[in-house]
Amino acid sequence: MPLYNRVALIGLGLIAGSMSLAMRKHGLAGEVVGTARSTESRQIARDINLCDVIVDTAAEAVKDADLVVLCVPVGAMAAVAAEIAPALKAGATVSDVGSVKRDVIEAVGPHIPEGVHFVPAHPLAGTEHSGPKSGFAKLFENRWCLIVPGDADRAAVDRLTQLWQGMGSNTDEMDADHHDLVLAVTSHTPHLIAYTMCGVADDLGRVTDSEVIQYSAAGFRDFTRIAASDPVMWRDVFLSNKDATLEILGRFTEELFALQRAIRQGDGPYLQEYFTRTRAIRRGIIEAGQDTEAQNFGRDNTEDAT
Amino acid sequence: MPLYNRVALIGLGLIAGSMSLAMRKHGLAGEVVGTARSTESRQIARDINLCDVIVDTAAEAVKDADLVVLCVPVGAMAAVAAEIAPALKAGATVSDVGSVKRDVIEAVGPHIPEGVHFVPAHPLAGTEHSGPKSGFAKLFENRWCLIVPGDADRAAVDRLTQLWQGMGSNTDEMDADHHDLVLAVTSHTPHLIAYTMCGVADDLGRVTDSEVIQYSAAGFRDFTRIAASDPVMWRDVFLSNKDATLEILGRFTEELFALQRAIRQGDGPYLQEYFTRTRAIRRGIIEAGQDTEAQNFGRDNTEDAT
Repeated sequence: MPLYNRVALIGLGLIAGSMSLAMRKHGLAGEVVGTARSTESRQIARDINLCDVIVDTAAEAVKDADLVVLCVPVGAMAAVAAEIAPALKAGATVSDVGSVKRDVIEAVGPHIPEGVHFVPAHPLAGTEHSGPKSGFAKLFENRWCLIVPGDADRAAVDRLTQLWQGMGSNTDEMDADHHDLVLAVTSHTPHLIAYTMCGVADDLGRVTDSEVIQYSAAGFRDFTRIAASDPVMWRDVFLSNKDATLEILGRFTEELFALQRAIRQGDGPYLQEYFTRTRAIRRGIIEAGQDTEAQNFGRDNTEDAT
Repeated sequence: MPLYNRVALIGLGLIAGSMSLAMRKHGLAGEVVGTARSTESRQIARDINLCDVIVDTAAEAVKDADLVVLCVPVGAMAAVAAEIAPALKAGATVSDVGSVKRDVIEAVGPHIPEGVHFVPAHPLAGTEHSGPKSGFAKLFENRWCLIVPGDADRAAVDRLTQLWQGMGSNTDEMDADHHDLVLAVTSHTPHLIAYTMCGVADDLGRVTDSEVIQYSAAGFRDFTRIAASDPVMWRDVFLSNKDATLEILGRFTEELFALQRAIRQGDGPYLQEYFTRTRAIRRGIIEAGQDTEAQNFGRDNTEDAT
């Protein structure tokens, strides 16, 4: 038995595409209907058979859907919610996959009609690729999906939780503000810093672009992956999680200045102690199954080398 | 014919171990002699047969060596150079693998006797692992080795270049100051920023360590790999490449403040333009063969997933 007879995915990027493939693989939805604003994305999705049906408008997609998942950039959520509201089925659940929760709740919540359940969620999974061709069924396996139920109907929350678990995710519940702070630390600030470092490297008069690229294996290349993520999605994340991001950036700058001062003053013990402490975090992440222990992320396939 | 009859490696970490294995694999050295300050490292190296001979002191190791490579943290170079100087063979070449060149040249150069060639070098290759067990023969393949010959004997420079190329590296020559600036951009500043971000995450009262670890796949985990590198090596890098690192950090902070201001002011077009521009760098690195194009660095093995 599928969990939902009809699931509508609004937006056909990496997350929606992966959800469609994962739901099909595990038989979680009777039918998956998808739509995207761009004609090109819809055509690609049709060509690669990404969903069972691709329709031209969001209002059409949500008709008779038991679950509607908003998979558009955070800044586009309010307009989509306004568009679909009149077409939502009574008793349906509306969810989203936005990287920010407080702002999405404030943008979408007021549009949700009486009798429709709104259960915001955020799968912590992704790659640096985007668009309808970038999805794959295993994206969510062993990753976390954070559900922010607020005072939503318990049965609706539980069913959405089952969906995410059915796609391979671990799930946890959190309130919106804590979610936004945790993500400012684990995602938003790291992305901003990676973008900044790439901007600096791209913009130096005295070191050429080709030097930056050729010699990137000395460390820089690790930053370029997340700085290759979708620009519109990330623009919206920073604009909508402004307060938490600025708070963590403030902490980051404070910490950076302390290290900068230690370098200027030649304070070796401070640096060594700092660098020893941060090693433990990597160990924790590997033990928690959230990254590979293979050196260089396993990118070099060195197993057969020695 | 091997390029050198006898090669002495001082220090038995990731780089020395990988050099020994690579030189053996490609028949580049008649004999590889290794030594390390720590009794434990020497014992491990003996147990895993890392070199042809392991001796107890640096002075003993360099006896009759045609090539001596200093593979110790940058801050230890001067003391090692002083120790080996009286034992160096006339006509031998001394090189190093330090991540900083100006400081190493000033520390080692004065100890090099008349008739011995000093050819500093820096292989841009590594992993987050360290110690005598971390080496592997393919580490240098398709990576760059920067040689900083100064006014060294051309034949000695050419032979060392052949050695690095024989181990699979591309080679280039540079002057010391330019090397230190390029590395401040591509390696030293990225490492410092990664360490900083890990420090911030580790030190927040309102977000727990376990949250940071569990939810790290949202971006943060990419930073933890290089922040797991050897603390002593990195302490020495920052202390000895102080000026260039502080210069690039200054540029980084300026850029970060501009982005922070755009977030505060809600300047979406600025952010989007910035994030679009930095995407191109990743493409350049992949095209130059300096990183994998597989999503998530290939760590998820998703090929069979869709």
